[in-house]
Amino acid sequence: MTERPPHGSARPGGRTARTRAAVLAAAYEELDRDSFAALTLDRLARRSGVHVSTIRRRWRTVEGVVVDLLAEHSSTLPTPDTGDFRRDLTQLTQAIADFNNALRNRNVIQGLLAAAAHDSRVEEIVRAAFVRRTEEVTLIARQAVERGEIPEGTEAREVIAALAAPLYYRMLILRGPIDERLVHTSVEATYQAARSGVFVPKGDGKGDRKGDPEG
Amino acid sequence: MTERPPHGSARPGGRTARTRAAVLAAAYEELDRDSFAALTLDRLARRSGVHVSTIRRRWRTVEGVVVDLLAEHSSTLPTPDTGDFRRDLTQLTQAIADFNNALRNRNVIQGLLAAAAHDSRVEEIVRAAFVRRTEEVTLIARQAVERGEIPEGTEAREVIAALAAPLYYRMLILRGPIDERLVHTSVEATYQAARSGVFVPKGDGKGDRKGDPEG
Repeated sequence: MTERPPHGSARPGGRTARTRAAVLAAAYEELDRDSFAALTLDRLARRSGVHVSTIRRRWRTVEGVVVDLLAEHSSTLPTPDTGDFRRDLTQLTQAIADFNNALRNRNVIQGLLAAAAHDSRVEEIVRAAFVRRTEEVTLIARQAVERGEIPEGTEAREVIAALAAPLYYRMLILRGPIDERLVHTSVEATYQAARSGVFVPKGDGKGDRKGDPEG
Repeated sequence: MTERPPHGSARPGGRTARTRAAVLAAAYEELDRDSFAALTLDRLARRSGVHVSTIRRRWRTVEGVVVDLLAEHSSTLPTPDTGDFRRDLTQLTQAIADFNNALRNRNVIQGLLAAAAHDSRVEEIVRAAFVRRTEEVTLIARQAVERGEIPEGTEAREVIAALAAPLYYRMLILRGPIDERLVHTSVEATYQAARSGVFVPKGDGKGDRKGDPEG
């Protein structure tokens, strides 16, 4: 429905870049105070000092602004490296929890999913951003394999997805805060599953597993 | 932003009920063929034979229709009862996978999350629907406790959330299909975590666990 927002088509550091920075900063501030539902182009114009017609021309909708915000803020998860797999998992899970418990980040993700539902091109942007972030932190699992803490052949991306999934389920489906207990159960369930080889694909290495519910 | 849609305010079986049934059936059919983004009140009117102004008066938006659709279709997960915990988990996970791999159900959920982002009252409807569904299938974990397969004090809701979370993460965040491999890893990780007592809250029974990352 919406057209793809043109991303920083003019030279960096120029007026276009300054306008973009002002509007994205304004969006982040608004989403730190109120819901995504309350975000309007008029409010963005008021806070950023950029004329609403300029914002509308560039991003079309508030969803367009939020998608652009993701491009700016999606690589903020540090990769723990404590030398201990369980401690790494705990630090990573706590970082994801802290990030998603911040109102503005929660609002950005909810806005993104709304945008993805309305525009299939946004789906690919969301997917790519999360896959990229997941790739970075798979280092945790790969190092645990090297140290012999978890088995050879462990699919590192499955480990990270197993760790993060309960947090997103709590946030998006059960619509509650990510508390200490959930961080604990996510870490422990993932840790034990990884240790016992659940994330090592069987057979042809693609994880086929047919007609054997008993494992 | 949108007003709450009035749910079946006239007598059941009357014209209001027939209109609602026709529009909800039309929505389900449309979402089985195309994305939520493609759903419009005009398309609903065309397919249902109900005038677009009637639809707009009653539901306001396509999000309103989808929220009403949830109320109609949210209790469709059967609770497995095979006498074996792992087999129950496998059947339940497969049922959730099949449900969410159906395009129309995937579209309904994506539409609901979009609606929740735009209207905080929808959040509560989404939350309540999933909590209710989760409550029903917690029987699996409670029976496993009774049979002695998993420890006394296991928090059954945590078991079900751990099982379902990776499927929703795949669907909503990684935007991919729920495949056989994911069903397997979700079941095994949850099974092993439940067996080893991860879902038994420590201490005061509220799952407090402070400053002890080593467990």
